[in-house]
Amino acid sequence: MTVLRELRHQIPDEPLVYLGDTARVPYGTKSSPTVLRYAHEAARFLLAQRVKLLVIACNTASAVALDDLAKHYQVPVVGVIEPGARRALEITCNGRIGVIGTEGTIRSGAYERALRAGRPDIVVHVAACPLFVPLAEEGWACHEVARLAAREYLAPLLEAGIDTLVLGCTHYPLLKLMLQEVVGPAVQLVDSAQETAKVVAARLNEHQLLRQTAAVLYPRYFVTDIPDRFERVGGAFLGEELQGVTTVSLD
Amino acid sequence: MTVLRELRHQIPDEPLVYLGDTARVPYGTKSSPTVLRYAHEAARFLLAQRVKLLVIACNTASAVALDDLAKHYQVPVVGVIEPGARRALEITCNGRIGVIGTEGTIRSGAYERALRAGRPDIVVHVAACPLFVPLAEEGWACHEVARLAAREYLAPLLEAGIDTLVLGCTHYPLLKLMLQEVVGPAVQLVDSAQETAKVVAARLNEHQLLRQTAAVLYPRYFVTDIPDRFERVGGAFLGEELQGVTTVSLD
Repeated sequence: MTVLRELRHQIPDEPLVYLGDTARVPYGTKSSPTVLRYAHEAARFLLAQRVKLLVIACNTASAVALDDLAKHYQVPVVGVIEPGARRALEITCNGRIGVIGTEGTIRSGAYERALRAGRPDIVVHVAACPLFVPLAEEGWACHEVARLAAREYLAPLLEAGIDTLVLGCTHYPLLKLMLQEVVGPAVQLVDSAQETAKVVAARLNEHQLLRQTAAVLYPRYFVTDIPDRFERVGGAFLGEELQGVTTVSLD
Repeated sequence: MTVLRELRHQIPDEPLVYLGDTARVPYGTKSSPTVLRYAHEAARFLLAQRVKLLVIACNTASAVALDDLAKHYQVPVVGVIEPGARRALEITCNGRIGVIGTEGTIRSGAYERALRAGRPDIVVHVAACPLFVPLAEEGWACHEVARLAAREYLAPLLEAGIDTLVLGCTHYPLLKLMLQEVVGPAVQLVDSAQETAKVVAARLNEHQLLRQTAAVLYPRYFVTDIPDRFERVGGAFLGEELQGVTTVSLD
């Protein structure tokens, strides 16, 4: 939803189709083969909706499935890792970059690869932060519990002297204010949702796929569980009522 | 795994077949129709292994699916809610019982129903504690973060004067020491895993299904994701290496 929000800001005329695999989330604690299978099932569903570009708006799925999806399907596929990594390389001064994400994302090593591909001498410090997703979903982004967990997770990265921290999970922008407070003003945060939306706009432009007429369109929402919780949590996050959320089956 | 551990203590001669739906957990944030479907898929798998009794070792699935499973299948089906509720009614002095669990379990109202069925004048105070499962899995059971979250979740229950607290989620026994500290010595904790194992032993006896010969048997483990994480987390919890964990597909 953080990526969707950025897409709506940055390319407001584009029709968006959103699929949330709410019956099987979170992906962050699941294995690569399982996440890969789920990603293909989701991609096939969205392609059947005739989308012109596919965004893997999840770091775990991007880490595991981007190359494979890009190979299998005809449309451009954009993940959330490369945009964040590229931005981090642009803004770091001291060449020490921190990355936080789910267990799956961190274990995959995808950020280290993306960062080192851009600049081989970069120093990368990573930390898996499994409690951040439930904390964000609990609405405890600014709660003392979240602050304490953040201090614990981030201490080794701060001691290592990072000057840039990539929020390598699409839930983490919800914790941004609190995280900025914990890391202090000397560390810049990279919001991969924002960076991904920029890349999507550029890719659409490059492939001459940008919609030429203005329109006010609401996203179409599909989920795999019944919509109640998604409507409540997602609606609160976007600050609007989510209309016409439809349940679909992927398996 | 907390129920499995208790079963091994209480009925050590019984062969156990364990199925963990690791590709789709947690159930606690999912809707009733989805949890019901998953529970039936799991039950069919276990019955195909020719089990003589079925334990729904998950509060969310017990809350949603127990009656339906008991109606559909021939073997005795034991859930984890009724045993904990019965024990709480036995030990409460002031008739004020607290219940903590996942969003799904609490929303279902299953504990209130089970407690009031036993004693209509009972006063029940409930609290959903969505962070406890990730805290337990993170190994932060005694961490200050867990203590702070517990104090926040439990404050209304303690103010309401409960003298008994049901741990209404099979993960929560991992947090027992910390929870006892937070609630203080005047509140008794009910461990539904322990109570469920007692009921299983009684039901096997009542149906004359108890194994008559002693045997040292290791449980057979099935999971729906690849076994790595399960072997690591589950093995650490049981304090032994998990042998021959097999991946199966339910969908």
